Amino acid sequence: MANFGFAHLSVVAPYEAHWREACSAVGAEDLLQDAKMSKTLAEAVAGCTLVIGTGTLVYRKPEQTVVALPELPRPVQDELARGGRIALVFGPEKHGLTREDLSWCQLLVEIPTDPRQPSMNLGQAVAVCLYELASRAVAAQITLPADDPAQGAEESPTAAASGSLDLLAGVIEETMAAAGYSPRSMQAANRHDLRLLLRRLGPSERDTRRILGLFRRILFRLRGGPD
Amino acid sequence: MANFGFAHLSVVAPYEAHWREACSAVGAEDLLQDAKMSKTLAEAVAGCTLVIGTGTLVYRKPEQTVVALPELPRPVQDELARGGRIALVFGPEKHGLTREDLSWCQLLVEIPTDPRQPSMNLGQAVAVCLYELASRAVAAQITLPADDPAQGAEESPTAAASGSLDLLAGVIEETMAAAGYSPRSMQAANRHDLRLLLRRLGPSERDTRRILGLFRRILFRLRGGPD
Repeated sequence: MANFGFAHLSVVAPYEAHWREACSAVGAEDLLQDAKMSKTLAEAVAGCTLVIGTGTLVYRKPEQTVVALPELPRPVQDELARGGRIALVFGPEKHGLTREDLSWCQLLVEIPTDPRQPSMNLGQAVAVCLYELASRAVAAQITLPADDPAQGAEESPTAAASGSLDLLAGVIEETMAAAGYSPRSMQAANRHDLRLLLRRLGPSERDTRRILGLFRRILFRLRGGPD
Repeated sequence: MANFGFAHLSVVAPYEAHWREACSAVGAEDLLQDAKMSKTLAEAVAGCTLVIGTGTLVYRKPEQTVVALPELPRPVQDELARGGRIALVFGPEKHGLTREDLSWCQLLVEIPTDPRQPSMNLGQAVAVCLYELASRAVAAQITLPADDPAQGAEESPTAAASGSLDLLAGVIEETMAAAGYSPRSMQAANRHDLRLLLRRLGPSERDTRRILGLFRRILFRLRGGPD
């Protein structure tokens, strides 16, 4: 990360003793010392408008759009131009991101690898992704406004942050329960589908607030609140 | 290397006990088991027509052409189209390639990194370089002949292999000594300069043989051989 000029590291539920040791080691990067620790992925990406999952997808059929790493600079550049915040999510060395983890991601990226050896070392996968972004997307983004300063902000407003989508999803889920829509046995599956649906739709922050207002009102009424 | 479809690993003067252990480990890659071990860099790259050195060049002023990694696919692609063999040379983790090592390289490549943290982990540097080549140069090379099948081979013949240049350099050096050109104190420096000169000139295999013939003849005469 330091090699390619990336400064914001968030670590989700690390093994705490090892993590504290790494951060307090003599000569540890500022980056490591400034890293945020979160209990959940949802918390770590709450402030981000575009959450990108990484990994080898040979063994599963993802529900989101998948781009090859050489194609990633374009969407990243577009999101940066709109003033968005991007998270690039990596899974643990052993098994990568779970299906649950991936449901927080709007976009998945795949590093094109030899089909005989698709599984990469974590540190190398991170290096390759950040190299691609640093040498293309980020550089391009800096020169973008000069090309067409008016474009961007106008036509597509900032997407809602992941945390706003989670807040909305929570209220929708309560509404489903209050409406007797979702039987207990289906709740986990519905929660997963809803999370993905919101990411697919990609509402703006403003739209998300509007939808939230609507569902809050519905929920209030379902629980017997007055007109 | 296996992730990006590269198969030919040469290791120069490894710590033998560790190296043998790594290669005979259960689950070791075919790549590792098929790796060649050489005593010197000269031996390892002897069969190559384009030798590319890698590393951080902030602390030294190289004598060769330096390209940024995103620009490397083009010369690699051109060399492959001519039927050449390419070596990408990495130094040891701690100090990278020495000035001596670099003198076997015609071209140097630099990974664009943050100036505050230019020094990369070896495994990550390798991954980033091979990713760039696999996703761009090698893919492009496969489609190249279709664009213009006649070009390439015609206009620029295969460059001489590194080993041929070393053979020529050796005979030229003997000639210098026989001619009393090179005082003993200057021999190491002259050898270094000569090696770089030959890489800069980049003679074809055929030209290298011609020049070699000439110097052998000169040397024979200097040593008192008959007309």
